[in-house]
Amino acid sequence: MTSKAFQDYYTDEFASCFGCGRLNKHSLQIKSYWDGEESVCHFQPKHYHTGGFPGYVYGGLIASLIDCHAAGTASAIKYRDRKKDTDNNAPLRFVTASLHVDYLAPTPIDSTLELRGKVKEIKGRKVIVGITLSAKGKVCAKGELVAVQMPEDFS
Amino acid sequence: MTSKAFQDYYTDEFASCFGCGRLNKHSLQIKSYWDGEESVCHFQPKHYHTGGFPGYVYGGLIASLIDCHAAGTASAIKYRDRKKDTDNNAPLRFVTASLHVDYLAPTPIDSTLELRGKVKEIKGRKVIVGITLSAKGKVCAKGELVAVQMPEDFS
Repeated sequence: MTSKAFQDYYTDEFASCFGCGRLNKHSLQIKSYWDGEESVCHFQPKHYHTGGFPGYVYGGLIASLIDCHAAGTASAIKYRDRKKDTDNNAPLRFVTASLHVDYLAPTPIDSTLELRGKVKEIKGRKVIVGITLSAKGKVCAKGELVAVQMPEDFS
Repeated sequence: MTSKAFQDYYTDEFASCFGCGRLNKHSLQIKSYWDGEESVCHFQPKHYHTGGFPGYVYGGLIASLIDCHAAGTASAIKYRDRKKDTDNNAPLRFVTASLHVDYLAPTPIDSTLELRGKVKEIKGRKVIVGITLSAKGKVCAKGELVAVQMPEDFS
């Protein structure tokens, strides 16, 4: 696993995300890394991240984890691919076009959550990432995110 | 519009949700109401609810708003339907089976967001709710949630 998170490559201007922004003190501080060909993110829920049922994680938090981890994965794969051909180190910025989550089982809040991402498709500026979210060794949710790369001169 | 939010009917035991729990001081305090045959929710983002792009709302927050508003709508329609036939006032509890969000346009953070929900299908314990999220009169996201009613003796 690499030591620097995908999100730590984002420039300061784009580091205020409520999910993963290192400069946002209210953020969830979601961090993603390569682990071979998969991306991985670990997250320890706080006691107040409960959903409607006591003891289980809020579905909106799970959606948020999937959003930032998958968008980070999309950015990282495009960055890695570009490095093969050029010396261009300019940051790559993505927006989420769509997000889908299937909640397969209640997610216990007293556990470290592990998200694993796999790039399913790259087509031009579009990257599709599949995510599994596990707790205590059991897959509790699956997600898919379509991310779209913004033009580098977008402002 | 009715004065008591759907979420205010949840019993104390189920009022600690990070999205809509009135007893969770960290919660987003999402509140949903009937407005005719549609459900409506207004939400004023905080300055720190930004996504990766400054000035726009975080996609995970949008997913969270859709989750709680749509699940609340599912609970409310089943409660309303049951009232026609019985005097049973026991709370109805739903879990989210799946959530889909299409992000159609950046959502400006300096605006009150309006979510409108429509029940698309009721089939046994399953309720499907469609959501539009608008800001400054423009639809910025659309969502669909499949909610499943838990057995009343579930604990």
